[in-house]
Amino acid sequence: MKKHNFSAGPCILPQEVFQQASQAVLDFNDSGLSILEISHRSPAFVKVIEEARNLALELLNLQNKGYKALFLQGGASMQFLMTAYNLLNKKAAYLNTGTWSSKAIKEAKLFGEVIEAASSKDKNFNYIPADYSIPEDADYFHCTSNNTIFGTQMKSFPQTEVPVVCDMSSDIFSRVLDFSQFDLIYAGAQKNMGPAGATLVVIKEEILDKVKREIPSMMSYKVHIEKESMFNTPPVYAVYVSLLTLRWLKSRGGISAVEERNAQKAKLVYDEIDRNPLFKGFAAVEDRSAMNATFNLTDESNKDKFDEMWKEANINGLSGHRSVGGYRASMYNALPLESVQVLVDVMQNLEKKA
Amino acid sequence: MKKHNFSAGPCILPQEVFQQASQAVLDFNDSGLSILEISHRSPAFVKVIEEARNLALELLNLQNKGYKALFLQGGASMQFLMTAYNLLNKKAAYLNTGTWSSKAIKEAKLFGEVIEAASSKDKNFNYIPADYSIPEDADYFHCTSNNTIFGTQMKSFPQTEVPVVCDMSSDIFSRVLDFSQFDLIYAGAQKNMGPAGATLVVIKEEILDKVKREIPSMMSYKVHIEKESMFNTPPVYAVYVSLLTLRWLKSRGGISAVEERNAQKAKLVYDEIDRNPLFKGFAAVEDRSAMNATFNLTDESNKDKFDEMWKEANINGLSGHRSVGGYRASMYNALPLESVQVLVDVMQNLEKKA
Repeated sequence: MKKHNFSAGPCILPQEVFQQASQAVLDFNDSGLSILEISHRSPAFVKVIEEARNLALELLNLQNKGYKALFLQGGASMQFLMTAYNLLNKKAAYLNTGTWSSKAIKEAKLFGEVIEAASSKDKNFNYIPADYSIPEDADYFHCTSNNTIFGTQMKSFPQTEVPVVCDMSSDIFSRVLDFSQFDLIYAGAQKNMGPAGATLVVIKEEILDKVKREIPSMMSYKVHIEKESMFNTPPVYAVYVSLLTLRWLKSRGGISAVEERNAQKAKLVYDEIDRNPLFKGFAAVEDRSAMNATFNLTDESNKDKFDEMWKEANINGLSGHRSVGGYRASMYNALPLESVQVLVDVMQNLEKKA
Repeated sequence: MKKHNFSAGPCILPQEVFQQASQAVLDFNDSGLSILEISHRSPAFVKVIEEARNLALELLNLQNKGYKALFLQGGASMQFLMTAYNLLNKKAAYLNTGTWSSKAIKEAKLFGEVIEAASSKDKNFNYIPADYSIPEDADYFHCTSNNTIFGTQMKSFPQTEVPVVCDMSSDIFSRVLDFSQFDLIYAGAQKNMGPAGATLVVIKEEILDKVKREIPSMMSYKVHIEKESMFNTPPVYAVYVSLLTLRWLKSRGGISAVEERNAQKAKLVYDEIDRNPLFKGFAAVEDRSAMNATFNLTDESNKDKFDEMWKEANINGLSGHRSVGGYRASMYNALPLESVQVLVDVMQNLEKKA
C-alpha cells in the first residue's frame, strides 16, 4: 500500500513518473538499453536534455526572453557558491529568511561584501521581512522564495533595478509568478521537479561577464551555457526523471492548474491547524507556505499519541525539522489532496480522543 | 534483445543491478515508497550511503588506514577543481596523458603553479611517459590512471614522497593495485561503479589542512568528511545504484576476480586487432588499456561495411572519440566476455568479406 508521503525533500513525485522511470531503467524507449547505460552524447539523451531545458523555460513562460536553462549538479548548496563566483564583484544584498539564506550568505562572503537587506532571525525565521531597501549599487539581490524548514513563503518580490537572484528550490513550478522579474533562478530538483542529483538553473544571459575574477570551468555559468549543459557528463537519470515530471506537469495543465490544487491542499491543512485547539501554526499567517505547513502541538503530552496515529494512517515524513520542532506537512505538486485529507482526519481523531 | 554495449561511459552495468534498480524506483525495500521519494536523512538511506562508503574502502583494501570515502557530485571535472582548491598551495606536478589530464591542469593553474612532469601530447597521447621526475617540493603529484579517449593505462605509478592524486574515473575497481600508494583517488561513477551523477572520492585525511586559502563549503573535502558525505542532499539514486554495483562486484569475488575476467576480454580483442590485417591498434602496446581498446581500420574504405556489420550484430557504442577516430571498444567490469566475442566475430567476418 502506497504511503502518504509528506517528506520535505526528496519527496513524492507523480506515480506515473515512477512507473515510467522504473521501466526506463530496464529498457529506455525500446532501445534495448537501460537509461543508466546510454551515452550522454547519444542522440536519444541529447533529445532528453534539450526537451527538459525547453520545457522548463516554457512552463516558466521564459522562452525567447534571453534566458537559458541548465541542468547542473550539486543542488542549491553549489549555487550559493556559483552565484557569488559569477556575479559578485564588490557587494551583494541578501534577504535572510532562514537556514538556506544563511548558508547562501556564508558562501557569498568569501567573494565580496554581503549586506543583509533584512533578516527574520529575531523570531526564528517565522515570518518574511516586509520593509527593507536594496542598495542601488549592489551587484545583485538574493532571496529564498520558500523556506522549507520554517514554512514561510515570499508572496511578492521587491521591485529593484539590480539583478534579482532567487533560490526557488522548494516552490519552483508550484505557483504562477512573473518569472521575468528574476535574472537568475535556481532550484535543486528534489521537490517539485525530480529526484535528488540535478539542479535547474535559469539565467538571463545579459547579467554574465560582469565580474573580473577568473572562474573555474565547472563554476562558470558561461561555460555551461556554451556547452548546452553538457560541459561534463550530466546526471543522466535525474535529468530524465525531471523531464518526465515536467511533462506530467504540462499534461495536467501547467503551473496555473497545479497552483489551484496546491491552494486547496494548503487551505485544507491550515484551516484544520487554525480550527483544532490541539494545534497551532508556526509561521506568521500572512507568510504561510503553500508547500510546507509547519505546526506544533499546543499540549506536548499528546505527542506520542499523535505520532502513533499518523504513522498508523500510513503517513510518512511528518516530523518537523529540529530547528522548529513539531510537525511539517510538505505538500508538493505530486501530493494528492486525499493524502492531506488523511492527515486532517488524523488531527480530528486526535481531538476526539484527547 | 539486449545490446552488446561497448559505450565509453555512461556504460553497461550488471543486468541484475538494472533489475534491482528498476524495482527500487517502484518500491524501495518493501517500504511502500520509491527510492526517488525517500528522505536522504531517512535511516534507510543513511544505511545505503554508509554501506556504499564502507564497501568502497573494503574493496580497495583501504579500511582502517586513515582514508575516508565520499560520494559527491560533479564528476571528475569537479574534482579537477576541488583537488587544487584543497591541496595546491604553491606548486603541483601533473602527468599529462590526455584530454582529462589536460583539463585537470587547466583548472589547477587557477590556484598555483603547475609543472607538467611529462606529457605524451607529442604523439597524440598514444603512450604513457616513462621517465620523469617529480619535484620534491610539489604539493602533490596528479595522474590519470586510464585514458578513456586514447586507450592507454598506467601500469605502474611513481614512487615519491609527495602526495599522489589519481583520477581513476575509468578504471577504478577494475584491477588490483596497492591503493595505499595514493593519497587521493577520485572517480566519476559512470564506468565501473554506477550511473552518471555520483563521484567517489577516497582521501587520506592527513593530507588536508595544508593550504591557507578559505575553501567554500561545497569545495571542501573537510566539510564533506565532517558531514559524512551528507553536507548537502546527496544524489540518492546514483549512490544507491553504485552500492548495488559494488555489492555485485563483491559477490563476484571482488577486484581480483574481475581483473581476471577483464584480462581475458582485453586479450581477446587485442589479439584480434594484432592478428587481423584490416585493423591496427592506436595505443602503444605496452600501455594498452584493459578498459578501452582503441583501434583503426588499416583501409578506410572498409568503414561503411564494418559499421553496418557491427550494428547488425547488436553492438552499441563502438565509434571512437573524435580525437582519435576509428573505434573504441570499452570493456568495463560488467561487459560479458560473450560481447567481446561477438565483436571479434564481426572483425573476422569483415576480413572474410573484404
